[in-house]
Amino acid sequence: MDRTERVRAVMEEKGIRQMIICNPADVLYLSGQHTNSTEHFMGILFSADGKCRLFTNPLFAIIGQLPEGMETVSVSRGEKDTDVMKSFLKPGETIMVDPMLQASFLLPLMKDMPETAFVPDDCCMSTVHAVKDPEEIRRMQISSQINDKVMGRLRSMLKEGITEKEIYDRLEETYRECGADQMAFAGVCFGENAAQPHHIRPEDRKLKKGDCVLFDIGGKYDGYCSDMTRTFFFGEVSEKQKKIYELVLAANRAAEAAVRPGVRFCDIDRAAREVIEQGGYGPYFVHTTGHGIGMEVHEAGGRVAADNETHVQAGNIFSVEPGIYLEGEFGVRIEDLVLVTEDGCRILNSFPKELEVIPADMAAKQ
Amino acid sequence: MDRTERVRAVMEEKGIRQMIICNPADVLYLSGQHTNSTEHFMGILFSADGKCRLFTNPLFAIIGQLPEGMETVSVSRGEKDTDVMKSFLKPGETIMVDPMLQASFLLPLMKDMPETAFVPDDCCMSTVHAVKDPEEIRRMQISSQINDKVMGRLRSMLKEGITEKEIYDRLEETYRECGADQMAFAGVCFGENAAQPHHIRPEDRKLKKGDCVLFDIGGKYDGYCSDMTRTFFFGEVSEKQKKIYELVLAANRAAEAAVRPGVRFCDIDRAAREVIEQGGYGPYFVHTTGHGIGMEVHEAGGRVAADNETHVQAGNIFSVEPGIYLEGEFGVRIEDLVLVTEDGCRILNSFPKELEVIPADMAAKQ
Repeated sequence: MDRTERVRAVMEEKGIRQMIICNPADVLYLSGQHTNSTEHFMGILFSADGKCRLFTNPLFAIIGQLPEGMETVSVSRGEKDTDVMKSFLKPGETIMVDPMLQASFLLPLMKDMPETAFVPDDCCMSTVHAVKDPEEIRRMQISSQINDKVMGRLRSMLKEGITEKEIYDRLEETYRECGADQMAFAGVCFGENAAQPHHIRPEDRKLKKGDCVLFDIGGKYDGYCSDMTRTFFFGEVSEKQKKIYELVLAANRAAEAAVRPGVRFCDIDRAAREVIEQGGYGPYFVHTTGHGIGMEVHEAGGRVAADNETHVQAGNIFSVEPGIYLEGEFGVRIEDLVLVTEDGCRILNSFPKELEVIPADMAAKQ
Repeated sequence: MDRTERVRAVMEEKGIRQMIICNPADVLYLSGQHTNSTEHFMGILFSADGKCRLFTNPLFAIIGQLPEGMETVSVSRGEKDTDVMKSFLKPGETIMVDPMLQASFLLPLMKDMPETAFVPDDCCMSTVHAVKDPEEIRRMQISSQINDKVMGRLRSMLKEGITEKEIYDRLEETYRECGADQMAFAGVCFGENAAQPHHIRPEDRKLKKGDCVLFDIGGKYDGYCSDMTRTFFFGEVSEKQKKIYELVLAANRAAEAAVRPGVRFCDIDRAAREVIEQGGYGPYFVHTTGHGIGMEVHEAGGRVAADNETHVQAGNIFSVEPGIYLEGEFGVRIEDLVLVTEDGCRILNSFPKELEVIPADMAAKQ
């Protein structure tokens, strides 16, 4: 079953007959085309007549071939986008609209179709995205292999006095050199900065002996994201750091061991959380255990969280990333991406996760 | 008058009492904060009570200081963004909404405020953006100086056999090396590709003697864009190429000579178009003469077009970019950014625009 057919099947399941999609990642997924909807509407309409139409305009050229069954509608210079959209929508029948659809398109449509309910929801797309097809799995695998390389490069840059910013500024280039399209995001955190789970702005903080070093990094390859976190220690490791590290590592492994089709996402979260709670650090594990990932770093499906009772399926890909954060001191997080297989899971990245102390003097000599 | 006061003044002029802003460039302009509104609403409400409020959430940290008079509203974890937004909006009074406002915020607000008109329009912001303040002019000036440097670097890369892609791939790095935050966009076009005014995907097309080389490039410095086009000839120039080049250059100069406060944008377009029409190439100048620019490469104010009868004001910054495109052969465009001053204009970039033939053999030796 091709991708648009899968979407149509989910729409039928949910009782939706027409839908407007404009999130560029979804449009790329369905049509293979890179779009950017600002002045003109560039998206896909699933109409009640059963057809699926990609909207384009004279400034836009289709690259390659569209999937079978997808038609194009080119809005010409003098036409209003929403007038053309309206001609393919059935009044009176609920329209599911992309939560990203802009007011500039939505409001004129609503004005012209006052009897029609517009519902902002992306549940159909997120249901489809949650299960990756073989081509997506191939790209996710390569994307994570590139991430392994980049992590190795970052580790080799560590030396006394280097700043978070200096490392961060090399990342875009490093991702490209290692074969990625681009960097997707990066957290580079030394010492006490690693105790902030969302430390995303690198600082002029210098690396010094005894610091932990937390790299939470991801790139994109052919549109698909990687995401991995490793925590190193620079020069030396204290007993407390060691204890915390081993606890987080045990939690990471326990969660990954729990992954297989049929288990619930909350069970995986529990497996990680239990280890950390039993070690006495429950209150310091302040976030959920993981998130779905694919064309976007965070996808709606695949939240590994206490309140997500959805059952895991083969083809799901999500992160497993327990952490412990001690404010003002340090933080440890260990994150992998897992692909659910028929009988368990495969970890997509392969950078080692045993505790590693980077020699401070050796690095300084380089 | 500070920026939020200027917005409020324009709102009053247009009879608007409440407005929702979420375009990240506008939020940055007004608050100095970098935002990205996806799951959470991160924008600014101008309320009917006269106050101006920046919406944040617990994951977001304010960097630096907000302008005087701007309050913050932090939506906490359990709250719905739109419930909090609603508490600061007055039912029954028209709300001007950012055309970029997402369906996920707009539809719940409309549902809860059925008696209120929501109008998608950014005329207040574009009116304010159209006149740059001294700090903005300073940044635009530096941004264009960086663009001059980058253009020089690109020119020095030209050699027999180099591809459009090879040059394009060096651009991000080159912009950073020259002091920009990042590249904003780039068109790298050789020979017949320069005949497409919107050739934005670089190809494996190799440079050869007799080609024209069109670079349409821009970067960002401290949030402000540059934009300049230069057309060179590689190895040799034909009589026809020379004639077209001189015609475009004369059009560029005629348009720039026409710029001063009080003149209409359509008059500037006319000045350029007249030169090209008189030279017999009117039908080959297929686009408008220019566009407004600032935090975004294309700003709504400042369209230098036949149908824009708005009067130019001191502080406007826009491009002047006539071109002639001969399909299958070559294209020439010469583009500068001009700042309207009290008595004329200042050209922000300073890269030479006289016809230049890059020696093919000298370049090959490098």
